[in-house]
Amino acid sequence: MPVVGVIGGGQLARMMIPPAVALGVELRVLAEAPDASARLAATAVGDYRDEATVLAFARECDVITFDHEHVPQAVLQALVAAGSAVHPGPDALLYAQDKLMMRERLSQLGVPQPDWTRVSTADELAGFLADHGGRAVVKTPRGGYDGKGVRMVSQAHEADDWLADGPVLAEERVSFHRELAQLIARRPSGPTQLWPLVETVQRGGVCAEVIAPAPQLTDAVERAAAEIATTVANGVGVTGVLAVELFESTDGRVLVNELAMRPHNSGHVTIDGSITSQFEQHLRAVLDWPLGDTEPRAPWGVMINVFGELPSPAIAAALGHQPAVKVHAYGKGPREGRKAGHVTAIGDELDETVYRARAAAAHFD
Amino acid sequence: MPVVGVIGGGQLARMMIPPAVALGVELRVLAEAPDASARLAATAVGDYRDEATVLAFARECDVITFDHEHVPQAVLQALVAAGSAVHPGPDALLYAQDKLMMRERLSQLGVPQPDWTRVSTADELAGFLADHGGRAVVKTPRGGYDGKGVRMVSQAHEADDWLADGPVLAEERVSFHRELAQLIARRPSGPTQLWPLVETVQRGGVCAEVIAPAPQLTDAVERAAAEIATTVANGVGVTGVLAVELFESTDGRVLVNELAMRPHNSGHVTIDGSITSQFEQHLRAVLDWPLGDTEPRAPWGVMINVFGELPSPAIAAALGHQPAVKVHAYGKGPREGRKAGHVTAIGDELDETVYRARAAAAHFD
Repeated sequence: MPVVGVIGGGQLARMMIPPAVALGVELRVLAEAPDASARLAATAVGDYRDEATVLAFARECDVITFDHEHVPQAVLQALVAAGSAVHPGPDALLYAQDKLMMRERLSQLGVPQPDWTRVSTADELAGFLADHGGRAVVKTPRGGYDGKGVRMVSQAHEADDWLADGPVLAEERVSFHRELAQLIARRPSGPTQLWPLVETVQRGGVCAEVIAPAPQLTDAVERAAAEIATTVANGVGVTGVLAVELFESTDGRVLVNELAMRPHNSGHVTIDGSITSQFEQHLRAVLDWPLGDTEPRAPWGVMINVFGELPSPAIAAALGHQPAVKVHAYGKGPREGRKAGHVTAIGDELDETVYRARAAAAHFD
Repeated sequence: MPVVGVIGGGQLARMMIPPAVALGVELRVLAEAPDASARLAATAVGDYRDEATVLAFARECDVITFDHEHVPQAVLQALVAAGSAVHPGPDALLYAQDKLMMRERLSQLGVPQPDWTRVSTADELAGFLADHGGRAVVKTPRGGYDGKGVRMVSQAHEADDWLADGPVLAEERVSFHRELAQLIARRPSGPTQLWPLVETVQRGGVCAEVIAPAPQLTDAVERAAAEIATTVANGVGVTGVLAVELFESTDGRVLVNELAMRPHNSGHVTIDGSITSQFEQHLRAVLDWPLGDTEPRAPWGVMINVFGELPSPAIAAALGHQPAVKVHAYGKGPREGRKAGHVTAIGDELDETVYRARAAAAHFD
């Protein structure tokens, strides 16, 4: 029985447990704390930044993969040096860890993305603003997620605090009419498999809702997204699941916003909505097993995030109100604003499917 | 977070893990051995016949349910006396434990079943044979499963060895053209929910294949099966999933063959084939939560059991050959003839769905 080790015990590791159970794969998790979301599969609790901790954990595993992208490069390199099969590998993960390096690499690959530049001083930012209508998005190269480390600026000194710590990324503020996400899986031996392109609806910089497939897609947009994801997956050598967050701009361009090299919030809809979920596919990919069919189980799938908490009585009430909706709880204690679970509805009609998902999610408001 | 304790660590307990993860239910398993199929959720290893072991395990659980029906009545009664919520309860489980009591209770409920009698001597068996064309099925009241404890007899002395240990059950040998199974879930508070009626194909007294729904069903057969399962579930007070194994006789009768009060092999097809699987529904039922929609995800579902073992390379080969088929491994070491996993295909056309399931299963021959 192959052993897959996951560094990080969040909900992504948790949601790998069901497919591991089905596939007869032993999942082991290095969790941050004993009460981590993926505690059921935790075989170790420790700091993922500590080389000795990670190496000891990895010694008992056939493959190492991740719940998040925060494992330091030095630790990743030590893993590889010790002979671990690390998927995705350090050379790929680098581009999910550092947004400046990501932009540089995407430029080399010729992938369409917003105009961008590396900014080291307020003067350089002023120059970029001047060239882009006085508006820009500034991002810290590392450590940002769910809207953190991202700032809309119109004055050159608005990033001074960040610039004190080093260079930042300045990006064109794209006028887009929606955000899309293209999920793809790639095996170490090369084969890739795409899921249908989805629309992601953000609130406050955080994913709130996903519609699969993205409604009213043009062939051109669909093809562009597929080509971008395939180019990035192969070009960067990603192994496992890659999520490419995209803008569909008002002038018809499809541009890369962010990359994530792991199962991703935009793919939670695949658990109930696809023949092969992103979590099953991730396990298959990192084991270099054949990839599964990614066809939808129904014409439409709608996923809604739940923040804060999912008390059991509310889960029961949601299930009672919507008997065909699926509730996924992450087993976390209550905390304001934190992703605590999600609900998914699938169906034949978009409006009706959205209605059912929202009606279930409303029980957690 | 509610805690459901499962007595027994076999594949049925194992397959409760994924829905427990999704629903935010903490699953705890009292396993027979550290390498039990459901070891991931095992919080105790011990003998389910030992009252102290079971009581200690149950103390930390909100609800107790089962992987099998073998927990002795004395232990079940002790659990109830200690205040545990036991689902199904001892009074219901009795009829899944003792086939003579089951036949008696079904007679009281007016449920159609084969002619039967309690036989204590070879002379009594001779009388039953004389009344039934010289053929009968003899069953030990307790301990039989997968064809064990069942014997086709035509001579009165063919059950002498069993009769030495006490009375046996003699049943009419029904001429049937196929076997069916009706799955139903019932909450402690009363509501029930049926799945579509399935056909089960047995080989050597063991379930080999399940087709959902049973092809070429007449309305009368469908109605009869639904009525039987509902009558039994309510009449016996079953809580959780009840499987009613049925004969569709050549003279058009629908007759109860066996009962199982737990998720059942005939319902494995619901994991991939139904909006709500039998394992999710069982958890919801024993928690007295609202029951889920049991509609199929596709017109046809086909489940094929795998015996002996599921080596990982064969799993990978099966997935590579059939990218839309789902493989379920039970994490057991190899053993001749033992159920080791199953494969499921769902699809729009029956022939094509059967073909894909069999093509995947062939990798484990």
